[in-house]
Amino acid sequence: MSASFSFTLEKTDGGARLGRITTAHGEIQTPVFMPVGTAATVKGMHPESVAATGAKIVLGNTYHLMLRPGADRIERLGGLHRFMNWPGPILTDSGGFQVMSLAKLRKLTEDGVTFQSHIDGSRHTLTPESSTEIQRKLDATITMAFDECTPFPVDRKGAAESMRLSMRWAVRSREAFVARPGYGQFGIVQGSVFPDLRAESIEALTKLDFEGYAVGGLAVGEGQELMFKTLDTTTPLMPVHKPRYLMGVGKPSDIVGAVLRGIDMFDCVMPTRSGRTAQAFTRRGTVNLRNARHMDDPRPLDEHCTCPACRNYSRAYLHHLVRAEEMLGPMLLTWHNIQYYQDLTAGLRDAIANGTTQQFVADFEAGQALGDLEEVPVYGLGK
Amino acid sequence: MSASFSFTLEKTDGGARLGRITTAHGEIQTPVFMPVGTAATVKGMHPESVAATGAKIVLGNTYHLMLRPGADRIERLGGLHRFMNWPGPILTDSGGFQVMSLAKLRKLTEDGVTFQSHIDGSRHTLTPESSTEIQRKLDATITMAFDECTPFPVDRKGAAESMRLSMRWAVRSREAFVARPGYGQFGIVQGSVFPDLRAESIEALTKLDFEGYAVGGLAVGEGQELMFKTLDTTTPLMPVHKPRYLMGVGKPSDIVGAVLRGIDMFDCVMPTRSGRTAQAFTRRGTVNLRNARHMDDPRPLDEHCTCPACRNYSRAYLHHLVRAEEMLGPMLLTWHNIQYYQDLTAGLRDAIANGTTQQFVADFEAGQALGDLEEVPVYGLGK
Repeated sequence: MSASFSFTLEKTDGGARLGRITTAHGEIQTPVFMPVGTAATVKGMHPESVAATGAKIVLGNTYHLMLRPGADRIERLGGLHRFMNWPGPILTDSGGFQVMSLAKLRKLTEDGVTFQSHIDGSRHTLTPESSTEIQRKLDATITMAFDECTPFPVDRKGAAESMRLSMRWAVRSREAFVARPGYGQFGIVQGSVFPDLRAESIEALTKLDFEGYAVGGLAVGEGQELMFKTLDTTTPLMPVHKPRYLMGVGKPSDIVGAVLRGIDMFDCVMPTRSGRTAQAFTRRGTVNLRNARHMDDPRPLDEHCTCPACRNYSRAYLHHLVRAEEMLGPMLLTWHNIQYYQDLTAGLRDAIANGTTQQFVADFEAGQALGDLEEVPVYGLGK
Repeated sequence: MSASFSFTLEKTDGGARLGRITTAHGEIQTPVFMPVGTAATVKGMHPESVAATGAKIVLGNTYHLMLRPGADRIERLGGLHRFMNWPGPILTDSGGFQVMSLAKLRKLTEDGVTFQSHIDGSRHTLTPESSTEIQRKLDATITMAFDECTPFPVDRKGAAESMRLSMRWAVRSREAFVARPGYGQFGIVQGSVFPDLRAESIEALTKLDFEGYAVGGLAVGEGQELMFKTLDTTTPLMPVHKPRYLMGVGKPSDIVGAVLRGIDMFDCVMPTRSGRTAQAFTRRGTVNLRNARHMDDPRPLDEHCTCPACRNYSRAYLHHLVRAEEMLGPMLLTWHNIQYYQDLTAGLRDAIANGTTQQFVADFEAGQALGDLEEVPVYGLGK
């Protein structure tokens, strides 16, 4: 189905994969980081600025958009691409994760989840069928199957029951998906940190022949070590010629480690949220621009970064904006952080293409370990 | 002094003047609107976006900048142009107005004003000499003389005393000004709504041969009619071959009326502040994007506007951003409002050049009178 939605695995270097996703709204080189545009906007950025960082695909959130402004309204207005002025690919989540974490008085049954809106307390229901239909109305390039994100920690029995419910919902989500050329639907692997449950989930999903597969239920408190360990036993079982998406991940080192373990796609609010709280990701680790040590510093935030925050301003100015609570502070730091994540994934793609992934990772780790207070320049991202 | 700072009066049409100011940081066509960048940033806009609207000069506020990040710091960092990435001309106010309206426990003497910071309560003094020196440290292209903005209402005696104090301060400000090629200093005409006091103020100031003259003490509650009446008797007495700046003004109709009365320069927080509260200025009057009537409206905010808010988005989307309290709402509406003010002054310049100012004003007023709810297109700004 969806003939023109395709994934081409172009090269591997160890476990790391270089690929290309073709969609109705454009091509995506992988590994890729997808900035999060929760309520039809990547917070604090013009979409032209998001595109200028090299981002090719953004995320939208079904839960937020169904409540405000509403999926029917977005459909009447021509879909999410037109609504938010992002002509490129858009992936929407299924709403399942956020219903469980954000909504009030939620009730889970075999049919789906009933919940109250965090905005006005109004009552709603999400099912595999309604989530899939909402994502169609939004005109999502990539639709996610409706699932339950298994909480952590969880015992084996709880993880198995939760995963099997998600697998039954995956069947219903797949049946509800309206195939359109260049559009795709991804199934979501659950099973918490139990390898055999992950294997069972992958087996169930691959029978449904999704256009891609996500790993869900990670980055929920288990820690990087256990996340990597789970990926080590999960990704080898996943289809080779379909994109693999690690949902909600993560810190720069999470992304690097997951790429080494065969993941192709990522999303996370970290770069945008951190940008609004004065935290910047750099080639020398994270930098807090609120810190008084930047007050008189004429240097750029990251001398190897091409974003406007680094090209046009001093740390002293960025610090001033943060202290004065000026909007331009979050605007510039969000742009920088998205640029950093795009540079990181672009660097990984170059390294995989050149067979130098191990060297790239060593440079990346050396830069992060140095920290921002050192004076030695680091060229970890190969720019 | 300041040989290369010059004003050329290119054409008049009735009382309206078309001019050109040459400065060390670039040329400015007049009538001109100067966006306000209080704390070294035009709130919610990248400076590249400010420039994209056609703005050639921005304002900075001495009071805010002396308190945070401090004039010495900005000087060490290369001046305000470099600090805020605005290579074009910058006008700074003297701090006098904001000390009186924003600072705490202020005390006015012949020497100057002592006050407490609204930020941290720290004690500071501004005098004609220190204000002028701070503006030099900021590297202001246009320095304003230190004055007392006479409150309104005020009796004749109070207005006279206040104006004469400002005139004594003008002498001291002029003496403190360090002449540099392409830089200028403006004197400020006071005298409230009393024509003879305004005349006395102009006579005192012109002896000091400033590079330009501002009209201060208006738009402080006297209303448009009395403001225009005061301009009617003030501008005819002002030097013809020097720029005339009406401080802190104003609404679009204020600007149009003041241009007809011979004013060349304007600044006001209205477009930026309104943009942050969902108020948009358009060719059909003001529009409140928070209003539910926009919820399903696929049309642009102003079909004749070239800004991104109007070119790339529906009213429904702008309404959504406002309701969801997304940063992009203020970002887009601020951009639109600055674009509107730049288009308004560009339209006035074109009309003066073509001798069609009266027609322009008639079209402008017809558009504003129509209101946003009418469906008939209006081409009042000649675009």
